[in-house]
Amino acid sequence: MEMPESRPGKRFVVPPGKIRRVRVELGARSYDIHVGTRPPDAPPLPPPSPGAALLVADENTAPLYAGGWEDWLRRQGIAVTPLVVPAGESVKNAASCATVWERAAEAGLDRRGVIAALGGGVVGDLAGFAAATFLRGVRFVQIPTTLLAMVDSAVGGKTAVNLEAGKNLAGAFHQPSLVLADLATLATLPPTQLRSGMAEVVKYGAILDREFFDRVDADGEKILAGDAERTVEVVARCCELKARVVREDECEAGSRAVLNFGHTLGHSLEKGLGYGVLEHGAAVALGMVYAAELSRRALGCPDGDLRRLKSLLKRLGLPTSRGAAAGLGWETLRRGMAGDKKSLGGRPRFVLLERLGRARFGCELDEDVLRRTWLELEA
Amino acid sequence: MEMPESRPGKRFVVPPGKIRRVRVELGARSYDIHVGTRPPDAPPLPPPSPGAALLVADENTAPLYAGGWEDWLRRQGIAVTPLVVPAGESVKNAASCATVWERAAEAGLDRRGVIAALGGGVVGDLAGFAAATFLRGVRFVQIPTTLLAMVDSAVGGKTAVNLEAGKNLAGAFHQPSLVLADLATLATLPPTQLRSGMAEVVKYGAILDREFFDRVDADGEKILAGDAERTVEVVARCCELKARVVREDECEAGSRAVLNFGHTLGHSLEKGLGYGVLEHGAAVALGMVYAAELSRRALGCPDGDLRRLKSLLKRLGLPTSRGAAAGLGWETLRRGMAGDKKSLGGRPRFVLLERLGRARFGCELDEDVLRRTWLELEA
Repeated sequence: MEMPESRPGKRFVVPPGKIRRVRVELGARSYDIHVGTRPPDAPPLPPPSPGAALLVADENTAPLYAGGWEDWLRRQGIAVTPLVVPAGESVKNAASCATVWERAAEAGLDRRGVIAALGGGVVGDLAGFAAATFLRGVRFVQIPTTLLAMVDSAVGGKTAVNLEAGKNLAGAFHQPSLVLADLATLATLPPTQLRSGMAEVVKYGAILDREFFDRVDADGEKILAGDAERTVEVVARCCELKARVVREDECEAGSRAVLNFGHTLGHSLEKGLGYGVLEHGAAVALGMVYAAELSRRALGCPDGDLRRLKSLLKRLGLPTSRGAAAGLGWETLRRGMAGDKKSLGGRPRFVLLERLGRARFGCELDEDVLRRTWLELEA
Repeated sequence: MEMPESRPGKRFVVPPGKIRRVRVELGARSYDIHVGTRPPDAPPLPPPSPGAALLVADENTAPLYAGGWEDWLRRQGIAVTPLVVPAGESVKNAASCATVWERAAEAGLDRRGVIAALGGGVVGDLAGFAAATFLRGVRFVQIPTTLLAMVDSAVGGKTAVNLEAGKNLAGAFHQPSLVLADLATLATLPPTQLRSGMAEVVKYGAILDREFFDRVDADGEKILAGDAERTVEVVARCCELKARVVREDECEAGSRAVLNFGHTLGHSLEKGLGYGVLEHGAAVALGMVYAAELSRRALGCPDGDLRRLKSLLKRLGLPTSRGAAAGLGWETLRRGMAGDKKSLGGRPRFVLLERLGRARFGCELDEDVLRRTWLELEA
């Protein structure tokens, strides 16, 4: 798929009247997501007013966007200390977390303090885990700058760092107090990352909402091209769907696992190839095709639904065939799936589709089915 | 005070019929504390059975006690991986936590896995924080081997590591699934550490239970001498009192702060002198005397109560006069108190006594009173 030409300053700029507010209802931990807000329009932090805030950004997001958000905090009378971390997945580790902790202490954060994350999932997960644990938990604000973070990682309270042994193996559940998704930041996002985010958008339709799947099927290209009004609606709907899932099962005792559709194989692909080789969303796209194939065999998911899923992912520029795994062997993939956080006793547990819009979680399958389905996937 | 001669094999050995079970009621997070249990008598882990466990001990506790507890786990069909960490406060840091995480992953812990801590507060806090965050939380067993850990740090779910900026500044609330306090381990505890634990024992009486204060006043020396039956009753009562406080305010939104009696100055003393110079309990003892003096001036706490508190602490071999601060200046102490986790906007908040057995938390006092009370404390 060709990317339409970039028109900075226009793409993804949401008119103030079109900003959408989505409420995540979690009792005392409820919060708002403002989709499409820019720093000058952003609402203030909920009380009590913090004395001090630490704003964590990476080398990409800091020069572009930190100024506006520092101003937003200062307008509220909050002292801001910026912390810029290297860009990329490798910063999401225990040592960086210690750096955020120490900087938060130096910045004078007390229990009313706030840590804000300006960036994609890496910055959000790292700063969020630091916020979950600094002084045993201070408030946290997500300011996602990637589509993936806006629709997925910035909502729902999962935070984590990576270990040598695997991704996201240490973390905490810690809900943000506020999520501010300025869609205009998507105009500076590399096209492959925008596509990566679309994989998660497609996921919500596939597992929870067939009508939404239809809408993404119709509007996908316009979103990639920067259509602000369509994007704000789609991002807000993803947030609503995720909020519903999180409300039902905040700490992933059960049903929240549906969000893992495509991720069992996806995580293993990312690990096997080395993190960063394949975008997260690209790995999830192939993982969704694999899980949908398993669904056809194990649950009788209709052929037509499988074809629609593959076709949409392809049109969005996402991989749907085994070629994307670049020769990674089955044994390696299978071992990676055994190490997944959701595995029990080494047996991976899949999210499968009964049909588009309806998912089932915790499915264990025969080894033979797992292997053959992979080997028979379109090469 | 002279320490009675050591009679290993007899001191602190609780007859099986005298083992005490204390229930901590916290809804789905409720658990039992078994006071006086030895590995052969210890109850099994609550279900579901974990496939794998990581047993964290330090260089002191591992050679003496790890074998018995490894057997206890293996008898239940659980694969055990031991991890021995250096002894001492300095191991309680972010890097050690990462080591525990990686070792837990290597040991094959999944979400049903268990991390057990065999040692004092350092091992318990470190392993507990790792358990709180590994896979966003796995089960945790406390096997405290110091009096301080048995009556305080092993109960109530506070876990933490230290930062450069201060003690316990990063952590989580994570309740254990089981606490196994084998009093026989106290027979190998250095006398200064036994006294240190007694400071926290005295604290419970002072803030919550005057009758219990009277009992400690009567039995203190016998406990230091290794009287098992008196010790099991006293430890169990401390656990009951702490369980009550924790049930009312698990995450320290308010009333749990009473447990901080003596700790505002105590923490600052430890920090100012350099950790390890003064035992934690010794610092808390002096902190309690200071807070009781403040209580007399600010709340009219009776003179007689203050005298009884000081006299008991002295008899237990704990410091009650400013000399223990070894010339540490007021400015340094005051700065240390401003950095306390419970401070807001740099103003320390004290737990004060209305009288022995009745405390009030969140008290802010005039700078002049804080300073003069310190300078007028018995030198």
